[in-house]
Amino acid sequence: MPKNRKKDGVGVGLIGLGTIGTGVARVLRQNGDLIAERMGAPLRLIRIADIDTETDRGVNLDGIVFDADAQGLVEDPQVDIVVELIGGYDVARRFTLEAIRAGKHVVTANKALLALHGREIFGAAAAAGVDVAFEASVGGGIPILRSLREGLCANRIHSVQGILNGTTNYVLTEMEKTGESFEIALKRAQDLGYAEADPTFDVDGIDAAHKLCLLAAMAFGVDLDFNDIPTEGIRHLVPLDFEIAAEFDYRIKMLGIAKEEPSHPGRIEARVHPTLIPRSSMLAAVDGALTAFLVDGDAVGSTLYYGAGAGEMPTASAVVADLMELGREVCRESAGRVAPLSYPQQNLSSPRVLPLGELQGRLYLRFEVVDLPGVLSHVTGGLADHGIGIESVIQRGPSATGEPVTVVVWTHPSPEAAVREALKRIDTGPEVLSPTRVLRIEEEVG
Amino acid sequence: MPKNRKKDGVGVGLIGLGTIGTGVARVLRQNGDLIAERMGAPLRLIRIADIDTETDRGVNLDGIVFDADAQGLVEDPQVDIVVELIGGYDVARRFTLEAIRAGKHVVTANKALLALHGREIFGAAAAAGVDVAFEASVGGGIPILRSLREGLCANRIHSVQGILNGTTNYVLTEMEKTGESFEIALKRAQDLGYAEADPTFDVDGIDAAHKLCLLAAMAFGVDLDFNDIPTEGIRHLVPLDFEIAAEFDYRIKMLGIAKEEPSHPGRIEARVHPTLIPRSSMLAAVDGALTAFLVDGDAVGSTLYYGAGAGEMPTASAVVADLMELGREVCRESAGRVAPLSYPQQNLSSPRVLPLGELQGRLYLRFEVVDLPGVLSHVTGGLADHGIGIESVIQRGPSATGEPVTVVVWTHPSPEAAVREALKRIDTGPEVLSPTRVLRIEEEVG
Repeated sequence: MPKNRKKDGVGVGLIGLGTIGTGVARVLRQNGDLIAERMGAPLRLIRIADIDTETDRGVNLDGIVFDADAQGLVEDPQVDIVVELIGGYDVARRFTLEAIRAGKHVVTANKALLALHGREIFGAAAAAGVDVAFEASVGGGIPILRSLREGLCANRIHSVQGILNGTTNYVLTEMEKTGESFEIALKRAQDLGYAEADPTFDVDGIDAAHKLCLLAAMAFGVDLDFNDIPTEGIRHLVPLDFEIAAEFDYRIKMLGIAKEEPSHPGRIEARVHPTLIPRSSMLAAVDGALTAFLVDGDAVGSTLYYGAGAGEMPTASAVVADLMELGREVCRESAGRVAPLSYPQQNLSSPRVLPLGELQGRLYLRFEVVDLPGVLSHVTGGLADHGIGIESVIQRGPSATGEPVTVVVWTHPSPEAAVREALKRIDTGPEVLSPTRVLRIEEEVG
Repeated sequence: MPKNRKKDGVGVGLIGLGTIGTGVARVLRQNGDLIAERMGAPLRLIRIADIDTETDRGVNLDGIVFDADAQGLVEDPQVDIVVELIGGYDVARRFTLEAIRAGKHVVTANKALLALHGREIFGAAAAAGVDVAFEASVGGGIPILRSLREGLCANRIHSVQGILNGTTNYVLTEMEKTGESFEIALKRAQDLGYAEADPTFDVDGIDAAHKLCLLAAMAFGVDLDFNDIPTEGIRHLVPLDFEIAAEFDYRIKMLGIAKEEPSHPGRIEARVHPTLIPRSSMLAAVDGALTAFLVDGDAVGSTLYYGAGAGEMPTASAVVADLMELGREVCRESAGRVAPLSYPQQNLSSPRVLPLGELQGRLYLRFEVVDLPGVLSHVTGGLADHGIGIESVIQRGPSATGEPVTVVVWTHPSPEAAVREALKRIDTGPEVLSPTRVLRIEEEVG
């Protein structure tokens, strides 16, 4: 029998009893026996700290110390592992570092914290000889980080891409299905609890960019600055975009994409934006508030991971899986067995993110123009002047001279910088009513 | 810094240098630096045993002892981990047990071995304090076993189901796409190397049933006897089945299904058979030689894992991931940290497999009959006599009295035993030309 210094159980302290925290308490309560059997020792939730100790969360907290004393919790000698579910930056950072300093392992679901303060937190953990686990920060209950770090660890990873944010995917799915505007679809997402009152983090791609930082770190051993990732939201999409995409057998999905190209040594592709993808691809089949990740490795080829990327119970599933992993490390005194970001902290490199202008792909351009003789030639001629080949041109709207009309152009594979240059010129034309919208097209998505 | 007793590297011995074994040597060679960086120590392939030491495998084996002495390999004190890639039962079993007895950890891709001799092998490993890893035995490079055992370990699993065999999925995809017979599609699969000369293991569902044993063990902590799993192959399918399925927005996929139903305490659902599933489901989107697994857990909900389930490099990806995991355990002396089947060996239960007759679902029935007055009433009346409700009846074939014709019936949800009873009577009718074919319909597949 292997040694086990914690047969009587591993002590867990939880800071932040909001939605996810309540889910964690619920999973530990309802599956406690199963967890003890699989882990070889029970996980004991012995202490919870939250500012609000009054609200009934609908979960049995008998026998658990529950107060507002987070500092007391991280210093409690009975606590082996601290779960940080405070959210936000400052308070979360403070107690995460306090817990590490007190020699506790930490589980967190806070991608924003790790994307901004990861270097400091992982460094402190390595110095203290404790582990930081964060499966719940990306993909909810889908074990995507564990798969990258341990399941696919034999591979040189070529790319990680996916639908990283369920809220955005819900809004896009609704817009496509109903033909409604962004505003109306977002309103329904908010009414249903899929989107926050302030939806900025989700619909402008910030949440997805935070997650992409962590995915790129695991896949390529890079320490990206979140602010260096080009990020574009979905506010500017209109129902016509979905209609035309469908006519060409494409769908529009908000993707996070990270790629390491042998043709770009020392640089990395990392970007978040709405993207046209073929209807037959696996990622195109992901609808509603669901999320999915496509990983391409040199030995394994393409693999896909799909499920609920958020929500109380799916996220709690990942937090408790991390608790069980760290619980095993506590029992066997094997902390540090796996580097949290898959690579040793000191080996992480900081490559330059490839500027969007250097991308080379097909683009979807939506022009809002006045239907006048010569307007099409202004658009197509402007593209031709910059060497941009055209695959299709579609005109939509009332066919009447002098009326506003939409023209959509699908380009041949082109350097994005050349297209942007061409648009700069075209958009100054008197027939052009508003800045032309550009959507990228990706073919290789499962 | 954590202790590491193997900074100079972990010794690996490989028995069986066939397709997968060559892939393993290739991955260790091409990604050796990356592996050492991620694992914290190099994996050193120091010894290979195979009967054929002559054939050039196209991979550089410089510095590796390569002979036919498998016994010498398992006893070599430089070898920490033995990779068993012999295949088959007897020799594989012998050297796996010899390696365990010699105190070596073992990595294997041999699902047949584990499905038949798992109890003995896992028992010996537990007694010897060594680990047995077998990610490559199910799903090729897709980390489905690791996801079940560690990613989803906080969940009570409700079901695991999937397209477990790429060969079968290739044949079904071709039959659907081209309208060809099973025999012609199989022939092409054989020509392309997707199917063996003797395709029995694949097309009759034996390989899928072996995998289902391992998946069910991990998901539910059960030790199923492979022979108890009802298994039905795809030889009896005809192009018309795919056509009619498509008209109803269904596809036909060969599924392995394991479910634990609260309504059936002490029993488990486990079965392998061709299945009609809705075209909109995620599993229906899996085409060609690819495979996918759908896992439903009480906290996480449904998650899906998709990719190449076989082949040299994908399978090698999983073998080397296992080597890295065991390498870490060697470095940290943390063997036995996770139970190989997710539950302690002595806790595995042996529930009864639910008989197919007790299933309650919609069924697709294909009758081959003579087009005579009264034949439809013979079929539908026979079903009605056993209380089977009918959703649709489709007749296909030359509409001429006395000619053979195909009648397909979609039933309402019905107890399968009642349907089988009805068919027993119906099939004795003089108008019925051959035994009626039954396909199950599953709605909840992602």
